[in-house]
Amino acid sequence: VSNRYDVGVATRPRTRLDVDARRAQLIEIGLELFSSRPYDEVWIEEVAQRAGVSRGLLYHYFPTKRDFYVAVVRSVSDTVRDLAEPDPGLPPLARLRASIDAYIDFAEQNRHGMLTTHRAAIGADPEVRAILAGNQAEATRRIVAQVAGGAEVPATLTVAINGWLRLMSSSVVDWLESPSVERGLLRDFLTNAFVALVFAARGADPELDARLPPPPTE
Amino acid sequence: VSNRYDVGVATRPRTRLDVDARRAQLIEIGLELFSSRPYDEVWIEEVAQRAGVSRGLLYHYFPTKRDFYVAVVRSVSDTVRDLAEPDPGLPPLARLRASIDAYIDFAEQNRHGMLTTHRAAIGADPEVRAILAGNQAEATRRIVAQVAGGAEVPATLTVAINGWLRLMSSSVVDWLESPSVERGLLRDFLTNAFVALVFAARGADPELDARLPPPPTE
Repeated sequence: VSNRYDVGVATRPRTRLDVDARRAQLIEIGLELFSSRPYDEVWIEEVAQRAGVSRGLLYHYFPTKRDFYVAVVRSVSDTVRDLAEPDPGLPPLARLRASIDAYIDFAEQNRHGMLTTHRAAIGADPEVRAILAGNQAEATRRIVAQVAGGAEVPATLTVAINGWLRLMSSSVVDWLESPSVERGLLRDFLTNAFVALVFAARGADPELDARLPPPPTE
Repeated sequence: VSNRYDVGVATRPRTRLDVDARRAQLIEIGLELFSSRPYDEVWIEEVAQRAGVSRGLLYHYFPTKRDFYVAVVRSVSDTVRDLAEPDPGLPPLARLRASIDAYIDFAEQNRHGMLTTHRAAIGADPEVRAILAGNQAEATRRIVAQVAGGAEVPATLTVAINGWLRLMSSSVVDWLESPSVERGLLRDFLTNAFVALVFAARGADPELDARLPPPPTE
């Protein structure tokens, strides 16, 4: 293997990957680093080194560290949105509990990543905000369609589901920072909270209540 | 009145106020400007002009626009925290409804201020975040003490109340941006949501349930 193109930091032989595979590899490395350390302690040199590529090639894919971070957030945010996808084999409440469990697992495994997007300055970057808001809106649409059984329902339900998703992410991030209750208690509270907030919306809006099917009991 | 110290922009005679009164006057002007316009459209020169002081004096109180903004947020955030203060003459649920009404009124009257602290980049400033987090923690403590009737209770209740406050502020900010439901519906949903989330916490945590007094019915 020729070392001709190496610029200092590469420690293993450079491999040739096509563009998409290389991008996916870099994002995977970014996810690992941003999940385990604060943003300011992730160095673009280390990413290049781990991928076995030159810094020049890395900058070709992601011109700045911020661009790299935004790409990682986009990938993670899509994953998180799909965690909420119900396993159709389970009864409704068990399905909900399983989704929340998957979300908390993901948060625990990506601790620093969650804290960075939700609490650090880079998390307030307009592009980062837009990605999270877009995926939250999509998750809300899916859950609303599911609760409404496909029927047209008043926006009160959207307010409730949106509110629940915010409640869930902020409670889980608070809990990562300071685990004041047991994990199972957090999971059960968030499960109950979903049902409770749908009831709260039904109670506030008779039209919504009339249009929704009876709530599931298990 | 001598014009000797005027530097350009002052349009009315400079008045002498003691330090605290001057500071309060400047913050009042800041509140008015930051509440009615995006951050980037507020000019420190206009603040000086409205207060009838030189820019030099303004910079003496607040070295940068960011410092000025942080001082305004601190003042506003204290006001918002105290909106949650119950009127002891009302029954519990009416008291809750009145607090939520006051919060929505405040948000409507301070539309741009709310959107700036919750959605704009300056709202992610660490000092701004710390002020809001401190006042949210204080509001949570007060509400928990009230719901628990002063008893020692498990942290599950704190998780629920914290979650409700986040749900309330994010729902109201969403609603300012895009009023998808009527104001009264939003108020009623948030009132029900409070009761519902306390129930959700009681349901998840038998120890909390055993320690709390029975829920109020009106």
